[in-house]
Amino acid sequence: MRDVAVVGIGITNFGYLWEKSWRDLAVEASLEAIKSSGVDKIDSIYLGNFSGGTFVEQEHMAAILADYLGFLHIPSTRIENACASGGVALRHAYMEVASGMSDVVLVTGVEKMTDVVTSQGVYSLSMAADREYEGYQGVTFPGLFALVAKKYMHDFNATRKQLAAVAVKNHKNASKNPKAQFHNIITIDDVLNASIIADPLGLYDCSPMTDGAASVVLMPLEKAKKLSNSDKPIKISGIAQATDTIALAQRNDFVTFQATIEAAKKAYQMAGKSPQDINVAEVHDCFTIAEICAIEDLGFFEKGKGAKATEDGLTEIDGKIPVNPSGGLKGKGHPVGATGIAQIVNLVEQLRGQAKDLQVNNAKVGLAHNLGGSGATVTVTILEVI
Amino acid sequence: MRDVAVVGIGITNFGYLWEKSWRDLAVEASLEAIKSSGVDKIDSIYLGNFSGGTFVEQEHMAAILADYLGFLHIPSTRIENACASGGVALRHAYMEVASGMSDVVLVTGVEKMTDVVTSQGVYSLSMAADREYEGYQGVTFPGLFALVAKKYMHDFNATRKQLAAVAVKNHKNASKNPKAQFHNIITIDDVLNASIIADPLGLYDCSPMTDGAASVVLMPLEKAKKLSNSDKPIKISGIAQATDTIALAQRNDFVTFQATIEAAKKAYQMAGKSPQDINVAEVHDCFTIAEICAIEDLGFFEKGKGAKATEDGLTEIDGKIPVNPSGGLKGKGHPVGATGIAQIVNLVEQLRGQAKDLQVNNAKVGLAHNLGGSGATVTVTILEVI
Repeated sequence: MRDVAVVGIGITNFGYLWEKSWRDLAVEASLEAIKSSGVDKIDSIYLGNFSGGTFVEQEHMAAILADYLGFLHIPSTRIENACASGGVALRHAYMEVASGMSDVVLVTGVEKMTDVVTSQGVYSLSMAADREYEGYQGVTFPGLFALVAKKYMHDFNATRKQLAAVAVKNHKNASKNPKAQFHNIITIDDVLNASIIADPLGLYDCSPMTDGAASVVLMPLEKAKKLSNSDKPIKISGIAQATDTIALAQRNDFVTFQATIEAAKKAYQMAGKSPQDINVAEVHDCFTIAEICAIEDLGFFEKGKGAKATEDGLTEIDGKIPVNPSGGLKGKGHPVGATGIAQIVNLVEQLRGQAKDLQVNNAKVGLAHNLGGSGATVTVTILEVI
Repeated sequence: MRDVAVVGIGITNFGYLWEKSWRDLAVEASLEAIKSSGVDKIDSIYLGNFSGGTFVEQEHMAAILADYLGFLHIPSTRIENACASGGVALRHAYMEVASGMSDVVLVTGVEKMTDVVTSQGVYSLSMAADREYEGYQGVTFPGLFALVAKKYMHDFNATRKQLAAVAVKNHKNASKNPKAQFHNIITIDDVLNASIIADPLGLYDCSPMTDGAASVVLMPLEKAKKLSNSDKPIKISGIAQATDTIALAQRNDFVTFQATIEAAKKAYQMAGKSPQDINVAEVHDCFTIAEICAIEDLGFFEKGKGAKATEDGLTEIDGKIPVNPSGGLKGKGHPVGATGIAQIVNLVEQLRGQAKDLQVNNAKVGLAHNLGGSGATVTVTILEVI
């Protein structure tokens, strides 16, 4: 198995992009990644996308991307694992390069969510959970994560104010990210006083509907070092994927996401790292409570201590472990299939020292955590400066 | 890269299976494949599925399959490449085993198409073509393949009767396949006199809506030889995937499927085989004209000679090159995401000499051809007795 590096990155604006189609977005991010990588040939393509069928009435999107990029005849594969589609696509691209099957692989994630009315979007998103059981009971994603939040608050005496600190931090970070969906700074009171979506989660505890795309180009590390582009290749030193029960109700403990723990264990082992070695993390904050659970399950904080740690500022850009400097799903936006790739783009910028106003000091090792549904699929990826 | 073998197979009945859900079908085929392989541990799962979102209101199906099989925590990935979802899933499972990342990988294909009304099914299927352009013009899949048929008949003086010979053969074969959707033998006149769906294609020129699932278990060949199950491992000696333009109108020549030619070239090369070495083939006869084009593009017959060859019986079970002894998509049924895996199951039965009434004499090398949409994705797989 060969070492693999990210050599090019691309990302579109995130938001309500009614003037652009999904294929415009996917092509834009892909071309930016290819151009920035300095390669002139792609051997294989992966497309991470959650629900093109219901959001944009299109399946078979990987073939369309290859076609619209002008890369006919090479393999182009769509990966769908709910909100972890991007992370899973990345892992398969990694395998293709590491194994020696291909040298240069493009991975693009895209979702176009705002061409349908919100109720249709919520319906589409419910297909990431167990439609026949959870969906049948009327539980949407805010409902599922509200159950997690209630239980977490009960078990660990956490407060809505502590959860709100996640949203406040991520909006603050997003305000300095030009590609982010939201640039408005919010206060704890804004979060607490917003409309309740699913008790105890209010509007600002939830990530938004978003259009957007993100891309990376992967290559064998040794070949990447010889590229003429000026940007440093960033090594993927650990990557792992794990599953859990689809339905929250089937788990013994639903404030711990077992798939996060399993994927993190494997990724840390592969990279020869521990949670203490991570300088910056992009984690899957689809809801404020999800970030709290993630930073515990990833080993940054003990179980039950994440809410307080966030309130105390330990996950700020200048904190003990900066979490979601990009603004995360909450502030940057959450175009489902693109999210896992956008996290990698943001981390590569951090590790190259190109994150401008969002730069974390001395960022040498980054971690991305991408979660599908209510945690039935998780990927954890560790990136390193070489 | 390690040699890879199929060590277990499973397949459900194909047809209108209103008493079974997609997860029932996927689990049934998976368990049969696992049981027949003699392994007790699976390292990774792939699920080929086309449009769960619109057919059964469910995405994130790979995680559900892992959950319902009781294989929590291992990676489980959904692959979607339209009607080639199964073949593409197989290729990724192959890569995972060949590269040494995993030892035992389950690949399941499933589609549940008959829980929606036919118009909804046609709408879903249209998402395998270019919805924004072809779909917007009102062209459905029978319409697209009718254009191919018209052009083919014009260019090569082929007749509807010659196309009909594909349907007659495949129904005859299916009548002896207990898992097939159709067991009725039809005549050339039946085909010619059936309702026209899209001129010149009639009802019997088109594959049906089908529910069904199929599974295979892959292992490194050397380890497979040590398994205690009595069935012979079958080597995957060539496998390749290629793309073409999504829209038929963008191609220079639409009676030649360039992605089939590209994928076949690579698969033959990888296997060290030529078309003359193939003893039995399962090809993607979504329409009668599709089988004609496939047997030419795969190199069994010269371009323009496939229709006549079929009429002359050269693709019968006792012909020069037996094509679709299982009944193909036309007779066996076409549960989209399952089709590419069902082809492998059928070929493994042939190569093991277990195909009973459908057995091809002296079958040592088999070829599967799986086509997505109107040919924008194609996989070609070559299997061999070791």
